[in-house]
Amino acid sequence: MQQANDHVAGLRACLTGGALYVRGDGERSEAEFLEYGRDRTRRAAPDFQILIFPTTTEEVAAVVRYCYEHSLAITPSGGRTGLSGGAVAATGEVVISFDRMTRLLEFDPYLPALHVEAGMITAVAQTHARERGYQFPLDLAASGSSQVGGNIATNAGGTRVISIGGLRDYVTGLTVVTGAGEIVRFPGHILKNNSGIDLRQLFIGSEGMLGLITEAVIRLAPAPRREATALCAVADVAGALDLLAGLRAAGLRPLAFEFFDAASLGMVCEHLTLAPPFREAHAAYVVLGWDEALLSLDAAVETVFTGSPAANHIIDLRLAGNSEQAALLWKYRESISESLAMIPPAVHKQDVSVPAGRMTRFLRDVHDMLAARFADVRLLVFGHLGDGNLHLNYVPGAGGASGARPDGDAIDEAVFPLIAAADGSISAEHGIGLLKKKYLHYSRSAAEIQVMRGIKALLDPRGILNPGKVLPDSGR
Amino acid sequence: MQQANDHVAGLRACLTGGALYVRGDGERSEAEFLEYGRDRTRRAAPDFQILIFPTTTEEVAAVVRYCYEHSLAITPSGGRTGLSGGAVAATGEVVISFDRMTRLLEFDPYLPALHVEAGMITAVAQTHARERGYQFPLDLAASGSSQVGGNIATNAGGTRVISIGGLRDYVTGLTVVTGAGEIVRFPGHILKNNSGIDLRQLFIGSEGMLGLITEAVIRLAPAPRREATALCAVADVAGALDLLAGLRAAGLRPLAFEFFDAASLGMVCEHLTLAPPFREAHAAYVVLGWDEALLSLDAAVETVFTGSPAANHIIDLRLAGNSEQAALLWKYRESISESLAMIPPAVHKQDVSVPAGRMTRFLRDVHDMLAARFADVRLLVFGHLGDGNLHLNYVPGAGGASGARPDGDAIDEAVFPLIAAADGSISAEHGIGLLKKKYLHYSRSAAEIQVMRGIKALLDPRGILNPGKVLPDSGR
Repeated sequence: MQQANDHVAGLRACLTGGALYVRGDGERSEAEFLEYGRDRTRRAAPDFQILIFPTTTEEVAAVVRYCYEHSLAITPSGGRTGLSGGAVAATGEVVISFDRMTRLLEFDPYLPALHVEAGMITAVAQTHARERGYQFPLDLAASGSSQVGGNIATNAGGTRVISIGGLRDYVTGLTVVTGAGEIVRFPGHILKNNSGIDLRQLFIGSEGMLGLITEAVIRLAPAPRREATALCAVADVAGALDLLAGLRAAGLRPLAFEFFDAASLGMVCEHLTLAPPFREAHAAYVVLGWDEALLSLDAAVETVFTGSPAANHIIDLRLAGNSEQAALLWKYRESISESLAMIPPAVHKQDVSVPAGRMTRFLRDVHDMLAARFADVRLLVFGHLGDGNLHLNYVPGAGGASGARPDGDAIDEAVFPLIAAADGSISAEHGIGLLKKKYLHYSRSAAEIQVMRGIKALLDPRGILNPGKVLPDSGR
Repeated sequence: MQQANDHVAGLRACLTGGALYVRGDGERSEAEFLEYGRDRTRRAAPDFQILIFPTTTEEVAAVVRYCYEHSLAITPSGGRTGLSGGAVAATGEVVISFDRMTRLLEFDPYLPALHVEAGMITAVAQTHARERGYQFPLDLAASGSSQVGGNIATNAGGTRVISIGGLRDYVTGLTVVTGAGEIVRFPGHILKNNSGIDLRQLFIGSEGMLGLITEAVIRLAPAPRREATALCAVADVAGALDLLAGLRAAGLRPLAFEFFDAASLGMVCEHLTLAPPFREAHAAYVVLGWDEALLSLDAAVETVFTGSPAANHIIDLRLAGNSEQAALLWKYRESISESLAMIPPAVHKQDVSVPAGRMTRFLRDVHDMLAARFADVRLLVFGHLGDGNLHLNYVPGAGGASGARPDGDAIDEAVFPLIAAADGSISAEHGIGLLKKKYLHYSRSAAEIQVMRGIKALLDPRGILNPGKVLPDSGR
């Protein structure tokens, strides 16, 4: 503690317009202070002494340079909505918050793109895009709190990847401060730049371990037009995937294709006292969106939902006739996370990718494994099936007298080898952070992890940026 | 020479189904042999002794491992349509051709995606995609000869980036052989994989200096619908850019937005004996495409081409009423390269990106510089203006009595600082290769080039992969 406080004056001297706070300085409560060093996970308690709010890239660089010279660890603090512990400062790190770097620097009407500071809230960026007639290329449940810099540092996903692609594809420019305190600017107002290795890509999704993102230029997507919505009952995940292939073959381009199983629906209907969507219960469901300008509702009924090969996979169908009906159909899907939060004590969550062609086999293997080894655990499955991305949720089963939280580590150790065997990913959207670093080897070979360490050493030579995150502890 | 031949037996032993040829072995003429070690540039003459045609990733790995153990340099040989000398084997490299790795390994109907070997010709991949109802996400003039592996290794561009994004965004999976002969497989049948640094991105656009791409999984784009085409006369590049912003503001999403100036049109009309598109000559032109399913031709005339702010920037307009008319309008743009090839002795070409907001100033500076220093050089400008990507072509002026090729090096040295000042790129699409490595510092900082060298050392520890390409010679 004393050690960190020795550096208060030196770090404060790096700031011109920014601010530095010390734990217990009376500026905010202990809880408010510590909030800057935690994300939405609760596995590691925050513990740090110095909290800095820079206001410019140059201030960030000066602070990092000071930390580099004195070998002080840094944890970047964005909207702190992460689910993997990537932004937790639990070992005395200097916390750098981007809360005071929130400006819109420029709107480029040609690309079109927004040039913003890293601390802009995602929802604010969405508004800027919408006001200019475009769509910010990211929408996720945490949009109201997450920040653009954190979105990029975690390569955030969401429900629109199937139609417009991932955030990575839209980041045209970045300004980053490396672990040596050097500012690197990747110019952003151009789409094409084939001049050597595209180093910009390294920082996207690197969870703060290679550099601190201070500014970004993000290309905007066309604004969504009138979106048609349907809820389809399907036989199972295989039926849902066949439906997807059939829809595409029939010329329908999904804007969204979200899957949930009967267990997920049952929980939502129970917790929110909602009537189920169909008179009969079905095994699985898909919420589907498409652009009515490309395919009207009537045309979809005529050419896709009846008579086409896709129709063979639809057991029951509800079409939204207006936006209220669409909102209701979406509610079944969008309330799942909220409903899961109501289950005491807690749910064990996985966020995985599995190739569509192997998904049925994978899910059967998971169910078999649970039946054999975790008989009192129930599995709820939902997610972005069109991306091959499922959220697996392990909840206490009705038979589990204790209702205790399932043993997440044991389940992870049992399921992740199945992911590896299927050429999937143990983290589709949420990243590795603290929680999954010991499992990284299920998605990355030893040679790859070695290259990652080498790249980290190039960009963060003293290992001060978000140490202990992503890469497995040495020796593994 | 003798030195290379010492390794013939050792390299041949790495092959199970593949083949190895030695220069002068009578299998093919000297010219046919050497063709495998050159691209479309003619600045460096090919000179090498060993040509290998592997048939599997494992054979490639065995060959590279042998070369690693014996410190033999390798040049990968794809469709050899590059314009920067990136595939030239001029110093005795072992040339590895992908001509016998051309299989379609799998069609994934869910992503949807093609899993192909690196040597598949781009046009063949396009056909596979089209036959399945989709669009291969790359189309360029060299599609008939270029290979998918080379497309990825150079992150090839083309005319569709404005509407569907760059090839990088579609490469979901890669199999590469590193410079140590290790096979790294990035699984491709999933869209999302946030598990550590995305190393796959390093290889895309790295021009063969980090690894040899042997297989790829490439996501497909929706097939184009009925495409409407218009040719607009505009005042200048600023007018074209204002037109682009105006079209977008009016809700038109361009599928193509290709610019050419009066000098380019004049040359095409002269060389191909074509009638000009308009009765009057104008300073600049744009060929524009959009999806008729989203905006009919009639609706475009009513809501976009008359009365909208976009219309203010259209000096004259021709709409294509059918596909023959569309082909004619496109012919003005697409014949430019062919016409340039008719100018003896040769043209000096640049392929640059400049932010739209700085393009007018940049072009004025280039014209001023030419007038002051290269009075007998004429500039022809065309390109993918919607991407901020222009092709600048320097041709002997009418006043140049000799008609000699303009001094490209002197022009590059004069123009590239202007690019750097505008935050542009000295290579938008064509890469760095041999020809532009001495100019890399205009687009990348010394720190970035240093990191690139570090990454090269991680993945190619003995520096055997395509040595002498991309990175400036040491000492720079």
